[in-house]
Amino acid sequence: MNPPTKTPLSDALRALIGQSVDFIDTPALVLDLDAMKRNLGRMAEFAKKHNIRWRPHAKMHKSSALAKLQVQAGAVGVCVQKTSEAEAMIAGGVHNVYISNEVVAPHKLTRVAALANQLAAENGQLAIAVDSVEGVGRLAKAMNERRAGTGVAAVIDVFVEIDVGQGRCGVRPGQPAMALVHEIRKHPALRFAGLQAYHGKAQHLRTPQERRDAIAGVVQAVVTTRKLVESQGIPVDLVTGAGTGSLVLEAASGVFGEVQAGSFLFMDHDYAKNERDPAQPQFEHALFVKTQVMSAGEDHAVCDAGHKSHAIDSGLPKVHTFEGEPELEYFNGGDEHGILRSVGKSWRLPAIGATLWLIPGHCDPTVNLHDTMVGVTGGLRAGKVERIIRVDARGAVT
Amino acid sequence: MNPPTKTPLSDALRALIGQSVDFIDTPALVLDLDAMKRNLGRMAEFAKKHNIRWRPHAKMHKSSALAKLQVQAGAVGVCVQKTSEAEAMIAGGVHNVYISNEVVAPHKLTRVAALANQLAAENGQLAIAVDSVEGVGRLAKAMNERRAGTGVAAVIDVFVEIDVGQGRCGVRPGQPAMALVHEIRKHPALRFAGLQAYHGKAQHLRTPQERRDAIAGVVQAVVTTRKLVESQGIPVDLVTGAGTGSLVLEAASGVFGEVQAGSFLFMDHDYAKNERDPAQPQFEHALFVKTQVMSAGEDHAVCDAGHKSHAIDSGLPKVHTFEGEPELEYFNGGDEHGILRSVGKSWRLPAIGATLWLIPGHCDPTVNLHDTMVGVTGGLRAGKVERIIRVDARGAVT
Repeated sequence: MNPPTKTPLSDALRALIGQSVDFIDTPALVLDLDAMKRNLGRMAEFAKKHNIRWRPHAKMHKSSALAKLQVQAGAVGVCVQKTSEAEAMIAGGVHNVYISNEVVAPHKLTRVAALANQLAAENGQLAIAVDSVEGVGRLAKAMNERRAGTGVAAVIDVFVEIDVGQGRCGVRPGQPAMALVHEIRKHPALRFAGLQAYHGKAQHLRTPQERRDAIAGVVQAVVTTRKLVESQGIPVDLVTGAGTGSLVLEAASGVFGEVQAGSFLFMDHDYAKNERDPAQPQFEHALFVKTQVMSAGEDHAVCDAGHKSHAIDSGLPKVHTFEGEPELEYFNGGDEHGILRSVGKSWRLPAIGATLWLIPGHCDPTVNLHDTMVGVTGGLRAGKVERIIRVDARGAVT
Repeated sequence: MNPPTKTPLSDALRALIGQSVDFIDTPALVLDLDAMKRNLGRMAEFAKKHNIRWRPHAKMHKSSALAKLQVQAGAVGVCVQKTSEAEAMIAGGVHNVYISNEVVAPHKLTRVAALANQLAAENGQLAIAVDSVEGVGRLAKAMNERRAGTGVAAVIDVFVEIDVGQGRCGVRPGQPAMALVHEIRKHPALRFAGLQAYHGKAQHLRTPQERRDAIAGVVQAVVTTRKLVESQGIPVDLVTGAGTGSLVLEAASGVFGEVQAGSFLFMDHDYAKNERDPAQPQFEHALFVKTQVMSAGEDHAVCDAGHKSHAIDSGLPKVHTFEGEPELEYFNGGDEHGILRSVGKSWRLPAIGATLWLIPGHCDPTVNLHDTMVGVTGGLRAGKVERIIRVDARGAVT
């Protein structure tokens, strides 16, 4: 319904390349490419050390260019949540895509089947999650219709999603999951590929101990289910899940074969509030909203970035503080404004025209507000624009 | 930096026109055009009755097509908050635009001056707000440079924004505002056009009495300032402000000459929580997110619309209830999911594939998530798609 279109970058954006960060208009989503590359390296090293596959979630950056960068760094492919995100990634040249979510609309499944065929022809692979008999039946129907229509016998990898504490999608572990495995195996166009076990709520539990307790429950649910499936002679090739908050635990579990963490690449203020597990790589902030002061009151200043520039579902952004500068706190100023007050007694407020850098509360929906990210090297103060990164799955919600 | 581009509508979207609402893929932003037209008629009638100009805020719908519909219905033009929104509206054929916000970046003001020239040539008018001497100086410089460069002596209308209780932008009423009026009048390219007095926080005070008290303070600040300016022989041609929550009060004040209300056209769940002033037109919900159930648990269902499909800064969406159907409550399921539970004891949950309609908590940032709105006539159940409305200022935050 909403196929990705590649609009040309405007001349104004192209003209930025090679220019100082000072020339970036505000508000703008700016990516510190040096920090991002360090995060990427840390993840690649982590995966190697733990001998685990990584398939970062592209719902976070929504950019096929960054997805390909991740694959070059060793990722097996990407996850997405939506059919239209899969379309954008595949159109952008990513050949291994897992829709880690349920898709049930017949017209969407027709598109899923077409993508499965396309990737098979490209020596790639499409995978999808299911959590209902109804969903399996609808997927099989679409795959079979595609087979009948094209003569191509593509197979889609199907993961059974089990609810491991999130209370959202997923069947219960154990017998209900087993029933779905049998259902999948009835259809030659579907291959039972393993289990999807993601605990979203565990990602932002603040202490390592809370996260350990939550993921211990996840691992138990996975082990129970896997044993049951294997007891019937059916191999469970892969267990996939984990996010940036908990990945060290899934990686160490000996049960998960693949981690889906996405936010590690950019990080955000919400993740920064987590007390770090010593085993976890030290990821750093790479995503910022550049903003400018446009109005100055007696005890506050106003900047030009509100919640049309950054998502506030996980809290307000934090103002990045450079050494020797007064600390500022960001207050909600509505859709287009941010209110800034100084922290403590200094009352040194920035003047009209001053530049500030915000660390968004939540990276995923913040990126989804922007058509482009401005990639910078050399730091936020003295840096230059190296490239403009298109958010080619922006708005891809179907 | 980010000029509006007109990408062609995809074939899939064009194919929807004339089809049943059943064919609209989910999640999608759907506009009940019948309800919207009734809201438009109510506002036109209200403005006529109170003999007041209306200049609806296009930051809400971000669509030049809807802006032109409002002008056809009697609006004098539109307000916007951002230079790039003004560019999108003007590119779309709107000739009377007021940037009801401060713009201070020199490169933005260069664009503002270009727009002022363009509208002057089209017998239109550009206006802008200021709240600082610095801002007036920068605006005058850009206008003068444009004059020197083109030989065209366009004049921009300038409103002095006074802070009437919002605590965001605006100078203090009285003497500080007076000083800015003098500053504006030093520059031949700037015309002092009046006062901007908008109290955003008053819009969602829940009782009519609370709103009356807040707007009484607004009116007093305006009267004080206007008297002071007029005492120096300077006419105050227009006072502009008001939103959907309070417009009945500003219109009745005898002080305001123009109301800027925007949300009345679509309405949202937050505005619906206001206790209605009997003098206020009864606006109805016209904006919905169509969503589909994709997973069904034992005590909850999951739909495919999360906060990448609707903004949650003013609360979660309400599930629209059709007569005879069980009432459902929407709980936060993250970026891509919504959790649905039945209200009361019925536990009649919708099945996989069922369609639901969400009333967003806040219309403005919800619209800003979507590239298009699907315009429907004949109701949400039996209706047909009449037109696809482009959100041509989507993402226009600079």
